[in-house]
Amino acid sequence: MTMSLEKCIRDIPDFPKPGILFRDITTLLNDKDAFREAVDSLCAMLKDVQIDCIVAAESRGFIFAGALAYQLRCGFAPIRKPGKLPYKTYRHTYELEYGEDALEIHQDAFPAGSKILVLDDLLATGGTTGAMISLVRKLKGEIAAVAFLIELTALNGRKKIEEYPVYSLIKY
Amino acid sequence: MTMSLEKCIRDIPDFPKPGILFRDITTLLNDKDAFREAVDSLCAMLKDVQIDCIVAAESRGFIFAGALAYQLRCGFAPIRKPGKLPYKTYRHTYELEYGEDALEIHQDAFPAGSKILVLDDLLATGGTTGAMISLVRKLKGEIAAVAFLIELTALNGRKKIEEYPVYSLIKY
Repeated sequence: MTMSLEKCIRDIPDFPKPGILFRDITTLLNDKDAFREAVDSLCAMLKDVQIDCIVAAESRGFIFAGALAYQLRCGFAPIRKPGKLPYKTYRHTYELEYGEDALEIHQDAFPAGSKILVLDDLLATGGTTGAMISLVRKLKGEIAAVAFLIELTALNGRKKIEEYPVYSLIKY
Repeated sequence: MTMSLEKCIRDIPDFPKPGILFRDITTLLNDKDAFREAVDSLCAMLKDVQIDCIVAAESRGFIFAGALAYQLRCGFAPIRKPGKLPYKTYRHTYELEYGEDALEIHQDAFPAGSKILVLDDLLATGGTTGAMISLVRKLKGEIAAVAFLIELTALNGRKKIEEYPVYSLIKY
């Protein structure tokens, strides 16, 4: 089933910088059947996980989060770049290859003890995922699962989050 | 029906700058019943519109676009800030109150003649919506409808797009 989905992902060499092979999901999103199959497959993979709320980071993470929150009948708490969320936030700063980045979540995004699905389109080195998990824990959320459309297995991002149940639909 | 949705939207005074009353939809997204009702109501509003593909701009526009593309069984073409889309793009530059901004779409986002739903969470002055429409027209898409979760009627954004069918769920 996921074989056909892989065919809908476009490889872009040297994006965003030389030496990186970018997995472009826009060709999958453009294709109504592929998008539907991707959402259905993610939901099927997570069918035994109890979820109160999905968290996902802007921007690409929001696409599947919207579809899955609807299908799984749970809430959605956006994680955004600093200054974008209008209410009181918690911020998590994390290291990048060069410099650092930060993400924020609303302090009232979900009640303590909520069962949270951390969702992203892609697991690479796990930096963004780690930041999302830190923010969920700051709000005392219980991480029910961490799920990805795509996992770049060679980058070992899964090692950073192996204490949680990790799901990915397409592995490279 | 939309009365209950309005109660789920939080007003934040003076965000992002003094004098602006920001309509914060994160409280609606956090609430699984409100989010579901918002998606269902948008779909019901658009039930007689034939749509091949939804276009929406990052980041907040992606949330409802994901849910609606799934529910309406159509594709989704993301519109992003310059440099974010990895393949060949068209760019539209537009004026802001101070300075200018730009948005991009992939040149192969949808075939010419496709029936397009332009979707956003909020219609204010219509600047972003106008840019999205320009990009759709550049790809020779046919604009089937323009839809919003929220319309700030006092800002008259609808006037800029009145040649198209415009739908909004919550009006202030």
